[in-house]
Amino acid sequence: MTTAPVSPAVPLTDLDTDSLRAANARFQAAYDALAAQGLKLDLTRGKPSADQLDLSNELLRLPGDEYRDAAGTDLRNYGGALGLPELRAIFADALLVPPAQLLALGNASLTVMHDVIVQAILHGVPGGERPWGARTVSFLAPVPGYDRHFSICERYGIRLIPVPLNDDGPDIPTVRALLEADDSIVGMWCVPVYSNPSGAVYSKEVVRELVSLPAAPDFRLFWDNAYVVHHLTDERPTPIDVLGLAAEAGNPDRPLVFASTSKVTFPGAGVAFVGGSQANIDWLVRNMAVQSIGPDKINQLRHVRLLQDADGLAAHMEKHRAILEPKFQAVSEIFENRLAPHGGGRWTAPLGGYFVSLDVLDGAAERAVQLAAAAGIAVTPAGATFPYGDDPRDANIRIAPTFPRLDELRTALDGLCTAILLAESETLLAQRGDSEG
Amino acid sequence: MTTAPVSPAVPLTDLDTDSLRAANARFQAAYDALAAQGLKLDLTRGKPSADQLDLSNELLRLPGDEYRDAAGTDLRNYGGALGLPELRAIFADALLVPPAQLLALGNASLTVMHDVIVQAILHGVPGGERPWGARTVSFLAPVPGYDRHFSICERYGIRLIPVPLNDDGPDIPTVRALLEADDSIVGMWCVPVYSNPSGAVYSKEVVRELVSLPAAPDFRLFWDNAYVVHHLTDERPTPIDVLGLAAEAGNPDRPLVFASTSKVTFPGAGVAFVGGSQANIDWLVRNMAVQSIGPDKINQLRHVRLLQDADGLAAHMEKHRAILEPKFQAVSEIFENRLAPHGGGRWTAPLGGYFVSLDVLDGAAERAVQLAAAAGIAVTPAGATFPYGDDPRDANIRIAPTFPRLDELRTALDGLCTAILLAESETLLAQRGDSEG
Repeated sequence: MTTAPVSPAVPLTDLDTDSLRAANARFQAAYDALAAQGLKLDLTRGKPSADQLDLSNELLRLPGDEYRDAAGTDLRNYGGALGLPELRAIFADALLVPPAQLLALGNASLTVMHDVIVQAILHGVPGGERPWGARTVSFLAPVPGYDRHFSICERYGIRLIPVPLNDDGPDIPTVRALLEADDSIVGMWCVPVYSNPSGAVYSKEVVRELVSLPAAPDFRLFWDNAYVVHHLTDERPTPIDVLGLAAEAGNPDRPLVFASTSKVTFPGAGVAFVGGSQANIDWLVRNMAVQSIGPDKINQLRHVRLLQDADGLAAHMEKHRAILEPKFQAVSEIFENRLAPHGGGRWTAPLGGYFVSLDVLDGAAERAVQLAAAAGIAVTPAGATFPYGDDPRDANIRIAPTFPRLDELRTALDGLCTAILLAESETLLAQRGDSEG
Repeated sequence: MTTAPVSPAVPLTDLDTDSLRAANARFQAAYDALAAQGLKLDLTRGKPSADQLDLSNELLRLPGDEYRDAAGTDLRNYGGALGLPELRAIFADALLVPPAQLLALGNASLTVMHDVIVQAILHGVPGGERPWGARTVSFLAPVPGYDRHFSICERYGIRLIPVPLNDDGPDIPTVRALLEADDSIVGMWCVPVYSNPSGAVYSKEVVRELVSLPAAPDFRLFWDNAYVVHHLTDERPTPIDVLGLAAEAGNPDRPLVFASTSKVTFPGAGVAFVGGSQANIDWLVRNMAVQSIGPDKINQLRHVRLLQDADGLAAHMEKHRAILEPKFQAVSEIFENRLAPHGGGRWTAPLGGYFVSLDVLDGAAERAVQLAAAAGIAVTPAGATFPYGDDPRDANIRIAPTFPRLDELRTALDGLCTAILLAESETLLAQRGDSEG
């Protein structure tokens, strides 16, 4: 910590203006000292750290002498559009998708999601009467959410409608009302387990509502289960069979399940998965037939040899947890010590995933990120967790604590708190019409 | 050979009807004997053989301990959208594209071509006034050509207009006349070196015309240089700098250069490349930004370590040649012995690439392929080398001699000739109104 708590236990919002000015002056002094350090630290993206990557270094020598699957197929050659059966079996278990309805593809689930949207625009999805591109279409976007999801929609002119994300998933009354009122809604972004960035885990009741609510036949849940095996504690959510629940509800084609090994092995050198009803899988395979003669099956074999089976995958993820848990504890500890005494923010304490969602005082997030950047601490741009980069309260900041070393993370978080407190005191003073603020 | 030449030096077309009936009966007997053997051989696709794949088995253990590029970047993590500089440099040399204008991407150039077309449909290309999807658009398709090129266009409703492919490239007067007459033409498929399937090599004069002819500003040459390093003899075509010629002609954005390592290392587990003017590259990078956080750079590093440099690539391709040359010689030899005495076909003798283009007597190709299949010899469907699978003469058959072992290849080719001669004698008899034919 670089500043001692100012008036501990008195939130900034409760200070009288003179006290707030005094606090602001102290925050400014602390910030000036921070800026003078010339830091160069990065909290922007959800990247694994080098020691996490080391856990998968065996991939650099695999598969060794082997190049055949269990059926004896030479994986070095063309073909195998559905992906390696042995790898699909491992992740079928984790994702609760039958192996026959789970494809193992290229190196990025983002690419698969993008292709689904492009194909839906140009051709429509099973059950749809016409291509999405033939009309104005919209997606529901639980917020705060993942900026790369939103970017795909923004790129193709798909309207994004924010929906509040509660601790147990998207706010169902809001979703219901929107679906009833607006027949342009054809999709919804969902990160059902350890949501990016809040860490929210959808409850079974919420999932049942999402697969049951009346909606257009071409309405799709983009079920990005990116963090389903990325636990940070012993408290594990009960796995939810979204495809089974959707079938029970009479909407088997509604969910499209996505996942990847990007944060299991090597980001960019991993394997993406997509699962769904047989109708959706047939549609996906048909779409892929004109664009690929098959995925990188040798890389899929590498992953089978590294992870072995569902237990091997779970054991591998425990090693990630051992590295990540202290980093997430550092986030809680430093925010508790630096922000809480001033009522300077509310943050999530996720049980898994890659992010912490921090809400600072309304109107202060963009300024805080700007101040942090000027002091050499890069943070995800304020607003990035909202469609069009527009956080109406200007309060949310996504914290990505995984990449830096623990000591650097602590320095970065401490510096960020310094920037936040200065931004908040400035913002409050400005709101009170204090031009010095 | 399973049949002795019938009336050597007398082409089938010159036989009188009685002699043709006698020949037909002998071909039928030979065919019946062939069918009785219960063969199961495959000449359908341009796949490397197992011993060709063995040439790259080092990839199964690479990169070993390494995971950094020359600049020290950790290639295991996200990023590096343009691809590994060291690998781009190796192929920049072979493709005559400046490294800065050459991207190294995923495992299939087909995927990149597909994405270019989809993005052009949805957004348009640099210099275009509107998306291709906003109007009816057409592609020129030199024939015979590559069915997977045509399939992308067919999938998205892009009209394909056949253009004759001569020994030195597409027939320029035809191309010129079509471009003048039809402003819906926005693209053209080109395999400039060792064309699939004829082996034609575009001359510099033809290339200069293709980059110079008046055309719409969003007209693109899809320059699929898939076989540029795949020589079969010592006779090497002079490399042509298509980007340089296009810039000289004032049409720098016209060519988009594609290539991959699919037939250099492992199909499906390789690396694709795309090159073009800076405006095209900027456009490609912008398109990719929403769909990927970077290609598989570890696999790119594997390829750098295997191939080393441009000389290493050339040496590696010589090993392929040593395996392939006898197979292509077998094609020539067997067709010469079996078809030539009957005037039963004309075929190309390519200096590189993966295919031989065979023209049988008009109207006999589909029946020949059908007869071969019934005798256990799978051949690419007749018509596949033409848009919509429609060969107006029903004459062209694509021969893919690379995958089978040499002994199996000889058996398959010999059996195919038996099927062809039977089909041709049947066809001629039918043309003469002989119902027994």
